[in-house]
Amino acid sequence: MTIADLTTPALLVDAEALTANLADMAAALPGPRCRPHVKAHKTTALAKLQAAHHPGFTVATIREAEGMVAAGLGDDLLLANEVLDARRLGALLGSGDARITLAIDSDATLAAAVAGGVREVVIDVNVGLPRCGVAPEKAGALADAARAAGLAVRGVMGYEGHLMLVPDPAEKAKYTEECMAKLLAAHADVGGELISGGGTGTYAANTWVNEVQAGSYALMDTAYTGAGLPFRQALTVLATVISVSDGYAVADTGLKSLGMDHGNPTIPGAQVWFCSDEHTTFAPEEPVTVGDRIRVLPAHIDPTVALHERMHLVQGPGVDADVIETWAVDLRGW
Amino acid sequence: MTIADLTTPALLVDAEALTANLADMAAALPGPRCRPHVKAHKTTALAKLQAAHHPGFTVATIREAEGMVAAGLGDDLLLANEVLDARRLGALLGSGDARITLAIDSDATLAAAVAGGVREVVIDVNVGLPRCGVAPEKAGALADAARAAGLAVRGVMGYEGHLMLVPDPAEKAKYTEECMAKLLAAHADVGGELISGGGTGTYAANTWVNEVQAGSYALMDTAYTGAGLPFRQALTVLATVISVSDGYAVADTGLKSLGMDHGNPTIPGAQVWFCSDEHTTFAPEEPVTVGDRIRVLPAHIDPTVALHERMHLVQGPGVDADVIETWAVDLRGW
Repeated sequence: MTIADLTTPALLVDAEALTANLADMAAALPGPRCRPHVKAHKTTALAKLQAAHHPGFTVATIREAEGMVAAGLGDDLLLANEVLDARRLGALLGSGDARITLAIDSDATLAAAVAGGVREVVIDVNVGLPRCGVAPEKAGALADAARAAGLAVRGVMGYEGHLMLVPDPAEKAKYTEECMAKLLAAHADVGGELISGGGTGTYAANTWVNEVQAGSYALMDTAYTGAGLPFRQALTVLATVISVSDGYAVADTGLKSLGMDHGNPTIPGAQVWFCSDEHTTFAPEEPVTVGDRIRVLPAHIDPTVALHERMHLVQGPGVDADVIETWAVDLRGW
Repeated sequence: MTIADLTTPALLVDAEALTANLADMAAALPGPRCRPHVKAHKTTALAKLQAAHHPGFTVATIREAEGMVAAGLGDDLLLANEVLDARRLGALLGSGDARITLAIDSDATLAAAVAGGVREVVIDVNVGLPRCGVAPEKAGALADAARAAGLAVRGVMGYEGHLMLVPDPAEKAKYTEECMAKLLAAHADVGGELISGGGTGTYAANTWVNEVQAGSYALMDTAYTGAGLPFRQALTVLATVISVSDGYAVADTGLKSLGMDHGNPTIPGAQVWFCSDEHTTFAPEEPVTVGDRIRVLPAHIDPTVALHERMHLVQGPGVDADVIETWAVDLRGW
């Protein structure tokens, strides 16, 4: 089967680029120094390839944890997010097939962890991104409370998400150091073996954590293009040209098959005008014909993947590439 | 069951607002004068409520057509989009349970319709939005070619999508008239009983078409708030506050549960700062507590719904509303 046989829009993963991305990360951060984040691809078949390099995974939702355990990938999961309904995690742990460490940043999330049957936590520390995370100076007290409640505290995590797209390496290093100084201060109070943080944008700059929660590196997107990273764009959306007019054409991918929060997708050799629900209007440099297939580069992979039921592993960059395997995007939903 | 029992994020549909929206549209455009577009909600259970008022439906994808036929709602479907793989439509028609009219705007889409076993088409006319649609002066020739190929031509369609959010009613009416003059000119050459177009934003202004393809009116979104429409916001995303810091809080809905192409969602009584994959950071006017539930208004419903597996019909606007029914969003995918 080639991609000409696929119904469009369809998610394509370039096998060569994916393999190179996984190998590059494994070389830079071997074994437990990278804890791949599955929220970027939500696909256990892809996570199995990452498991050849790295023993643990990061997840963002309870559903992702459940799916990873069901796929036999639950040996060491870090749920790097706050949850109130931890009972589903306790149920997973009760099955005996999983180790799940949950992030907590408040008395309320600690209480939920205890009530839900969670056994191990990390203290989520605010290192500068205004999102979840306890203030660094309060991390020790929260860890003490967790231990007093019978939980094991494995360490700290802190995500410098606001630095992922800083283009200048020296600036990125400086800001990362400032953020990580907060995390290390918290860790001095908390203890434990895990100092977890970082992402694809800071995987090289962040030399302070002992595990990096990188996700985007596997598939990549155009938002990371200017960030000076070695990883290749592996994910494209295959679309069909369904209409051609004077000066523009229309492909059958749009707001329901492309994550739009980072802006319009990119079409090589064309200018994208706008997307609507099922359409992308673009001005091609060379004439296109109704029925042509094109490969569209999404601006942000995570929400793009979340819109698709499956992704196809393909050989080669063209529009007649062979389909090697088809993977279910099986970690979607909540 | 109340919405307190739901896993978040969750799509909620306010039953009273939905019922009022459906009744208001049925009063304004009774029976066949509205052909509800299911792309906005992708839910056959909701379409069944619309079928009490209107005999035909508009769909945007082959999958939507298949799902509507499977749900017994295939009596008169207009696939208001260009497709190249029309064989799946021919297969639906072969079952004898469906009437499907397909939009065409080129010789290539005409050929695909014929090859796929489609029997009835409309000519899709470009009325000003740079997307699909043949130039008005070429519509007659395409209709002739379709009839020569053995197809029935039921009329024309043209979508003035670029006018949906024009705030001033007089301006909207003037621009709509200009667009519809093109559609009527095409119809004079094409013939047939259908003059189809319009949407929620122009349902009242567009007095030239004989059926309006409105979709958003059923659930509504904040992008339509300034458009002076009588329809109420029926769709919200239920989220849980998972973290509270000085000056801001975080809820567990983000880029994977909210369509973002029209910008950030709205949280009544709060300022939304930004969304990330699983989070919305917001500054509440009144203090919130970890574990609180909030109802978030998406900026654009269509891509929001496409991210969810189900929606819950609820009674009342509060965070302890009763859940009346749960509907599968069963028309997703391609």
